[in-house]
Amino acid sequence: MSRLSKKERQKLLKQVIKDNPFLTDKELADKFEVSIQTIRLDRLELGIPEVRERTKTVAQNAYARLRSVNEGEVIGELTKLKLDNYAESYLTTTREMALQKTPIIRGHHIFAQANSLAVAVIDAEKVVTGSAEIKFTRPVMVGDVIKARAEVKEIKGKKYFVEIKIYKDSDLVFYGDFTMFKLENGGV
Amino acid sequence: MSRLSKKERQKLLKQVIKDNPFLTDKELADKFEVSIQTIRLDRLELGIPEVRERTKTVAQNAYARLRSVNEGEVIGELTKLKLDNYAESYLTTTREMALQKTPIIRGHHIFAQANSLAVAVIDAEKVVTGSAEIKFTRPVMVGDVIKARAEVKEIKGKKYFVEIKIYKDSDLVFYGDFTMFKLENGGV
Repeated sequence: MSRLSKKERQKLLKQVIKDNPFLTDKELADKFEVSIQTIRLDRLELGIPEVRERTKTVAQNAYARLRSVNEGEVIGELTKLKLDNYAESYLTTTREMALQKTPIIRGHHIFAQANSLAVAVIDAEKVVTGSAEIKFTRPVMVGDVIKARAEVKEIKGKKYFVEIKIYKDSDLVFYGDFTMFKLENGGV
Repeated sequence: MSRLSKKERQKLLKQVIKDNPFLTDKELADKFEVSIQTIRLDRLELGIPEVRERTKTVAQNAYARLRSVNEGEVIGELTKLKLDNYAESYLTTTREMALQKTPIIRGHHIFAQANSLAVAVIDAEKVVTGSAEIKFTRPVMVGDVIKARAEVKEIKGKKYFVEIKIYKDSDLVFYGDFTMFKLENGGV
């Protein structure tokens, strides 16, 4: 990122944090090629709380709306949720999610983020996965923070068609079409 | 199961244990509608070790052949492995694998068994998942023991087509067509 004026930087910083509230001051400093102290001062001036506080607020708002799953059952941090419409979550990948022989995150951890979000987005008490077509489009590396977005594409009675896209920054790393079923009347 | 003669029972017992070495004496007793003591005596006469011993032997043989993953990285217990051909694993499901709101095992645990077996069956040091078409054909309940079988259907250079079927007893609970990639030369 080329050197920006303070005004430009603060404008962009606001947007970047809005898009991904989970970035730490260190990550933001690296992104903007400024010191951590500069990011802290920017946040103070803009009235943006520190990452821990941001995460908590965002998560509390989203978790409060869940129906099919309980807090802690979504894999990753839930950040947005409009039942029967869309949901978003972030997953910070760790060494334990990779095989010892490679730094690539194992497919089932990414699938778990996707599948649990496909369940969470549905407005019903009980939801099961029927089928899915999935694609791992790029490898995810240990330490990557990935963002999943679920969109409910169609509802036919008890059958839900949910599209999941997972990104690392702007790169698509996973794509999935999920067919889900709600097990009882509830929701809408 | 209708009452069998001792000879018939022992013949069938041998086969049942061969198919699923993870059944406990209690489960076998229930299956054959006899006492646990009867099963123990049958095993003694047939020279079949107890479940713990069976599991250990079976697992050691299979794990010794793994290339892409280390022991403990296969989800479930690996029982058979012929690299680039087939593999089998058993997974004993637990309460923690279900959502609090239902006794149904969450899809990503079943997917993890399938996907890790699709990696394990390949004769290469490094393997990643490309894509998959999967179907959850019946719900798996807490406590169910499920058996996965992987079959390598086709190899095209670095590309592997692996079929995974998972059963609870004789019922198909999961079906998946996986496309896998090995990342370097190795294997056959």
